[in-house]
Amino acid sequence: MKNFVKPILAVLTIAVSAAAVAQQAQPKPENLIKWRQSAYQVLAWNSARIKANVEGQYNREEVIRAANSSAAIANSGLGTLFAPGTDQGKGWHDTSVKPELFKDGARVGELAGNFAREANELAKVAAAGDAAAVKVQFGKLGQACKACHDDFKRKD
Amino acid sequence: MKNFVKPILAVLTIAVSAAAVAQQAQPKPENLIKWRQSAYQVLAWNSARIKANVEGQYNREEVIRAANSSAAIANSGLGTLFAPGTDQGKGWHDTSVKPELFKDGARVGELAGNFAREANELAKVAAAGDAAAVKVQFGKLGQACKACHDDFKRKD
Repeated sequence: MKNFVKPILAVLTIAVSAAAVAQQAQPKPENLIKWRQSAYQVLAWNSARIKANVEGQYNREEVIRAANSSAAIANSGLGTLFAPGTDQGKGWHDTSVKPELFKDGARVGELAGNFAREANELAKVAAAGDAAAVKVQFGKLGQACKACHDDFKRKD
Repeated sequence: MKNFVKPILAVLTIAVSAAAVAQQAQPKPENLIKWRQSAYQVLAWNSARIKANVEGQYNREEVIRAANSSAAIANSGLGTLFAPGTDQGKGWHDTSVKPELFKDGARVGELAGNFAREANELAKVAAAGDAAAVKVQFGKLGQACKACHDDFKRKD
């Protein structure tokens, strides 16, 4: 192989590898939308069972599991699932996101921070095991959810 | 009100309240199926990004978030989403569960235990931050996922 070919091949190999990595690191918009819709459904599941527990018979272990799962999802980096190019499209169903979410990063960050703070606090309160305190904190988490839905989730 | 009516009303009220609680604690099968399909999609999201990190540029914080999210879901009580009556039906799509899952509790418990153990270990290894160790443990978690899919998830 001629001397000048090898370096060129090496550069090409690196470029192709880098492109492969970049491609791998950027899933398709429909996957991102499906994943975020899924994450919110897991939150819905956790909320449904925490609600059933604080309104009915209280099972401390189930509430801890649900609260920990919600906190982990709140801390999981959901923001990366709202990458550019996912303002429209279909995951499990057409996205419900409003275009404003992609324009007001400061407000999104504030609401996401509130959500994570309330979810982490609920996990802490759930671990302590006082059902009345869980009910109060669960209400605060619900308000954090609603605030974001009001601003950035379509009603239709 | 006659004296014997009050106690009867009281009993009826308690019975109706208890029925309401029981009903609330048992979501519809289609919700349970949708929630479990969603939980597995969040696991798929986490796996996709851990894979991208161990095969490409390693971002320790992203791997920690993904691993913690998977561990929390593994510990979240997924088994309750496979309640009787959910062997057939549609969540986001027709369930892929095999009927065997509802018949072999011992094997399900063993596989679920393996899954939780490997997911919890991955969260621990991710926190330590050694990419090579994460890659090994991520492989073990993948094997635990596959073992359960082989036995209890339809291919079609």
